[in-house]
Amino acid sequence: MEPIRSLSQLVNVLRSRCIRRRVAVVCPNDPHTEYVIIRSLREEIASYLLVTDENHRTIADRLHAASPDFVRVYTAPTPDEAAALAVELVRTGEADILMKGLINTDNLLRAVLKKGKGLLPEGGILSHVSLAQIPLYHKLLFFSDAAVIPRPSLEQFRAMIKSDTQICHRLGHEQPRIALIHCSEKTNEKFPHTLSYAQLKEEALQGRLGKIFIDGPMDAKTACDRHSGEIKGLSSPVVGNADILIFPNIESGNTFYKTLSLFGDANMAGMLTGTIAPVVVPSRSDSGNSKFYSLALACLAGNQND
Amino acid sequence: MEPIRSLSQLVNVLRSRCIRRRVAVVCPNDPHTEYVIIRSLREEIASYLLVTDENHRTIADRLHAASPDFVRVYTAPTPDEAAALAVELVRTGEADILMKGLINTDNLLRAVLKKGKGLLPEGGILSHVSLAQIPLYHKLLFFSDAAVIPRPSLEQFRAMIKSDTQICHRLGHEQPRIALIHCSEKTNEKFPHTLSYAQLKEEALQGRLGKIFIDGPMDAKTACDRHSGEIKGLSSPVVGNADILIFPNIESGNTFYKTLSLFGDANMAGMLTGTIAPVVVPSRSDSGNSKFYSLALACLAGNQND
Repeated sequence: MEPIRSLSQLVNVLRSRCIRRRVAVVCPNDPHTEYVIIRSLREEIASYLLVTDENHRTIADRLHAASPDFVRVYTAPTPDEAAALAVELVRTGEADILMKGLINTDNLLRAVLKKGKGLLPEGGILSHVSLAQIPLYHKLLFFSDAAVIPRPSLEQFRAMIKSDTQICHRLGHEQPRIALIHCSEKTNEKFPHTLSYAQLKEEALQGRLGKIFIDGPMDAKTACDRHSGEIKGLSSPVVGNADILIFPNIESGNTFYKTLSLFGDANMAGMLTGTIAPVVVPSRSDSGNSKFYSLALACLAGNQND
Repeated sequence: MEPIRSLSQLVNVLRSRCIRRRVAVVCPNDPHTEYVIIRSLREEIASYLLVTDENHRTIADRLHAASPDFVRVYTAPTPDEAAALAVELVRTGEADILMKGLINTDNLLRAVLKKGKGLLPEGGILSHVSLAQIPLYHKLLFFSDAAVIPRPSLEQFRAMIKSDTQICHRLGHEQPRIALIHCSEKTNEKFPHTLSYAQLKEEALQGRLGKIFIDGPMDAKTACDRHSGEIKGLSSPVVGNADILIFPNIESGNTFYKTLSLFGDANMAGMLTGTIAPVVVPSRSDSGNSKFYSLALACLAGNQND
């Protein structure tokens, strides 16, 4: 299949393949979550299991009344218990995706990470992938980690590469091009992530990271702009043509996300990875579009067994 | 004075104030440096002391022949000796600004940092300031540090704030608005820079950092987008209206620089700070425009005694 090149095309692919995911939503009690639910119902890419606390069921009931065939409502005494119930619905296979509504992210993550009752397999690594549609880039761009892991260890870098690669495959990239981001091209022990990068490249050469191209350290511009690479005398399948950027720390990943979204006029999507099912955790300042596309990305990522 | 709002206005201010700086250039042996020199001569904002090694004087001689009143040529046996001589010309007051041509940045910095013979005062802190003109922002935006200090200490943060504030004053900002960047609003000992931020805000309250507004930690979007602040219930003179962003590490500062320049369609300028005179160190992948505006910024920053 040809790689998906835009977020609206991503939605079209879901529609044309008749993929409709069952989404468990924790506390769908705010207009942004309601917007995402209504839009995805209209696009026919999702059905809903709305888990709300007993005092805030107005929006859930309204959504059920409008689409009784595709929206069920569950209640729990508190938001924390709503989170636990929604997680349970995913664990038992009644839902494919978990989505955050009006609940504190930390509280939702507590339910997701709860040992033996959460969504992270034993020994699993929770991370975050973002997807950006940037007017000044020629294709969709994935990157990690803008939200979860402060300073990735070698093992965490490996997990990020693995999960981002899987999602890239779902979008039709046979051999994703992965850039390991730093502020220069030099490997330097003062920057421990550059030593991890050297190790990752070695493992990739040995075929241990799957079918990918990988290169770095390089800066974000060199990864996405062929001209910058040429000036520096760099050339590889990755330079100027990256599909995935791996950032050295959460501050640089988060800065990339926020800068693209504000100054790059980009449409963004994002979800957690490493869990047994996609978890959508929109941040408060995301646009409605961005929240909807995050859900669409999760729908395409689906469950690992598809 | 009204704050300067664009890079072209910055050049106009130099012209209208008849500011013409004397610039010592190390190894002006490449077409990009030649372009900057020709354009700044035409704009009448600079005159030149070109210091080249003996084997590469073609461009220097051509520039002198075209503008004999404003271009002098010096030679040295090697690029390293050219760097030492150019630094000496600044130290003796014959030049106001040092600019890098075709010489390795590390070699130039060695001359700049040489104890007793360089441009850094004893106990001084070398840092870097960038200036961005971003189509989707309502004013010029300064930030540090995209290029020099890997993980700023409290003392280094203080120095960055001081030098960025000084340059902001030169551009007509009476009380610059400084955002301390992180990926969230939380102070957290797992992120030592957020503890430095708390200390800096305390010092600012006590009036020890001069006439500034300062706030943080906050992410880059919250610093530059009022709407994001409102959604988070944040409001301060800085939120959504920052003049200066201080980044927690070089990877995030560099990512901001590269993302603005590539995907934000921004015009960039930059220079070293902490030295007794501005030092312009364009990077290879900067555009010709960006290199010219870096020189213009250095011309406005001038020397500390103006």
